Amino acid sequence: MDERLKKQMKFALEMDKEKGIGRQTYILNALRKENDAEHGWHLAIMTMLLSEYANEKIDIGRTIEMVVIHDVVEIDAGDTYAYDDAGNSTKAEREKKAADRIFGMLSPEQGQYFMDLWLEFEEASTPEAKFATAIDSVQPLMLNDASNGLAWREHEVAASKVRDRALKKIKPGSEKLYEMVIEIIGENVQKGNLRDC
Amino acid sequence: MDERLKKQMKFALEMDKEKGIGRQTYILNALRKENDAEHGWHLAIMTMLLSEYANEKIDIGRTIEMVVIHDVVEIDAGDTYAYDDAGNSTKAEREKKAADRIFGMLSPEQGQYFMDLWLEFEEASTPEAKFATAIDSVQPLMLNDASNGLAWREHEVAASKVRDRALKKIKPGSEKLYEMVIEIIGENVQKGNLRDC
Repeated sequence: MDERLKKQMKFALEMDKEKGIGRQTYILNALRKENDAEHGWHLAIMTMLLSEYANEKIDIGRTIEMVVIHDVVEIDAGDTYAYDDAGNSTKAEREKKAADRIFGMLSPEQGQYFMDLWLEFEEASTPEAKFATAIDSVQPLMLNDASNGLAWREHEVAASKVRDRALKKIKPGSEKLYEMVIEIIGENVQKGNLRDC
Repeated sequence: MDERLKKQMKFALEMDKEKGIGRQTYILNALRKENDAEHGWHLAIMTMLLSEYANEKIDIGRTIEMVVIHDVVEIDAGDTYAYDDAGNSTKAEREKKAADRIFGMLSPEQGQYFMDLWLEFEEASTPEAKFATAIDSVQPLMLNDASNGLAWREHEVAASKVRDRALKKIKPGSEKLYEMVIEIIGENVQKGNLRDC
């Protein structure tokens, strides 16, 4: 096997670790929480499914590549819960270091391709990155709603925080999905799944 | 929420069930087997990573869409192990019925889009479908090799069956990955992980 392919296969095996990175969202049967690999797959399907609601025209293929790759830095940096303020203050630094190591496993130009995709997602300024960010927030919200707010209740999450997050993360990518989410948040306040503040 | 979006969100939730469909391949730490959602995510990454080895020029975005969607019929039909001859004789019929129900949850033109992607993968005649099929076989082989042949030994798999499968599933999509896989199979025969027949 030549050096380039050897590096790629080592990277492909490294990716397997994503299956062991836990998130805070319960899957549908509410028996366990999902991991990063499952989350990334679900985002890819939802990007294909809902792309018509992007505010701007997007390249669907590139958007899927972005949602698939965006969490691999968590192999080193771990998952930071959306509503963990302390964790979020050190997140950027931890993840940049992880990106350098992980994408650095590849030949420079291929490592750079993945790094650019990851940075594009993080910066959330292109139409593709804005829509990817929206889907990344809609998916756990959908699962939280479906599990009757289990993870929200565990963390005693305030509705205002979820609304703020939707405004920042979903609205820039999709007005239509933002409207839907605001409706879902309201329903969960009424059910007592989100704190009404 | 309008009817079209309602259907799409119901479908997005249905997809969550993929996280509960078990496969025969152990993940890297060999503590548990992977599920369909994790597998689909890993295939998407590996398609991005290895597309340069496709025998013919491929549309990477469409190939990723194909690997992401190709197993969702297993929500109804279950996973059929590659070396289960009895299971494989009824697989096509079970999966077609599943595809009709699952893609039928969507508006007709969107359901047809997913159905066409799935059928393209199953027929394995376009350059994209051939490469997707190759990656779908390389990934478990890589994980089996990394876990020292655990799943192969459990099922007492013969090397000739793995070579046959590689010839049919990997070579048409990628000569380069086929060569690599033949090397890996040989090493696993030497280690006693595959039966030498």
